[in-house]
Amino acid sequence: MFLDKLDWRYATKKMDPSKPVSEDKVAQIVEAIRKAPTSSGLQPFHLFVIRNPELRAKLKAAAYGQEQLTDGSHLLVFAAFDGYNDARIDAIVDQHADERPGTREMLEGYYNNLKSMYLPREDHVNFEHAARQTYIALGFALAAAAELGVDSTPMEGFDPAQFDEILGLKDKGLKTVVILPLGTRAEEGDWLAPMKKVRKLAEDLITEIN
Amino acid sequence: MFLDKLDWRYATKKMDPSKPVSEDKVAQIVEAIRKAPTSSGLQPFHLFVIRNPELRAKLKAAAYGQEQLTDGSHLLVFAAFDGYNDARIDAIVDQHADERPGTREMLEGYYNNLKSMYLPREDHVNFEHAARQTYIALGFALAAAAELGVDSTPMEGFDPAQFDEILGLKDKGLKTVVILPLGTRAEEGDWLAPMKKVRKLAEDLITEIN
Repeated sequence: MFLDKLDWRYATKKMDPSKPVSEDKVAQIVEAIRKAPTSSGLQPFHLFVIRNPELRAKLKAAAYGQEQLTDGSHLLVFAAFDGYNDARIDAIVDQHADERPGTREMLEGYYNNLKSMYLPREDHVNFEHAARQTYIALGFALAAAAELGVDSTPMEGFDPAQFDEILGLKDKGLKTVVILPLGTRAEEGDWLAPMKKVRKLAEDLITEIN
Repeated sequence: MFLDKLDWRYATKKMDPSKPVSEDKVAQIVEAIRKAPTSSGLQPFHLFVIRNPELRAKLKAAAYGQEQLTDGSHLLVFAAFDGYNDARIDAIVDQHADERPGTREMLEGYYNNLKSMYLPREDHVNFEHAARQTYIALGFALAAAAELGVDSTPMEGFDPAQFDEILGLKDKGLKTVVILPLGTRAEEGDWLAPMKKVRKLAEDLITEIN
């Protein structure tokens, strides 16, 4: 149960390199990311699943040396679309029309309207829209990992430009927005592990209107 | 299991107003939102849990009349911080220092550095950062709802300015970013329910680097 793991999970600071995450669990986390909902079904991101140790070491240097990138066994890199364009939206229409026979006309109406709203906007606006969708998928990855008892550390603390350069993202129209090392918490050496989880009190975070 | 519900869940288009979601389940969804991780623990958003039918009817008019706002039983409104400031960050430091005795010095070092990065940025940049964090919480809400068998419909299709006005958010330094009606799918009348779930193929969405 995901809901039983809300306190178990935490942003793991020290992972044990001798305890890699099983491929079966990684596949389930990746599938949760693939199934995550996004605005108008655009799925405006690409996911990199990086096992290669040399590449992870290189990326670690672009992430202030944070050890989870190499002490973990898998590094998930979430890269959002740098903008929207006709081809990216047409690909959605085509796939949906293929998989849901008889819907092309409705789809074209819907997505032509969407194009008329999105395509005139500046790229950075559409990139931010895409980045938000990517964070839903990050949420699904975190939930899936927790449910499976896999440790993970969501990170924004890295140099996106260096990540984009190392992974060759510019030519693909992508920008790194967030990364998620997967691994197993070390029994010792994690300063955060023994700490109480702190969250805002419900009364400070939530307003009920009845 | 959340992972068993990835295909069960969908953006419900028609909810049955005679089947409200139990308060016990709503409380669990809200708790998942409260426990969702956010960058540097900032939790830079506020959640409104709206049951009041008149208010939901008013908000529906600002959401192109989408019926889920009133056919569902609860409307979650996620409002992100419109920017960061000293007070908002100091509140985090104070709460963490209170709940984790002996950490104030470390916390002040960390968050003073964060202030030096965030506070000189334009508000819209920090708002976008806050909005992304809010979408992690949205992901947790969607995962929790699915696990509990609660239907939900994540929506960006509304007029944020009208929502902010109706809910009086400007004075609170908040901006509506996404909403999530909770309810129960209607047996009939939902055009999307019988449709195949469509997602990008793994080969189009994911690159593995071994």
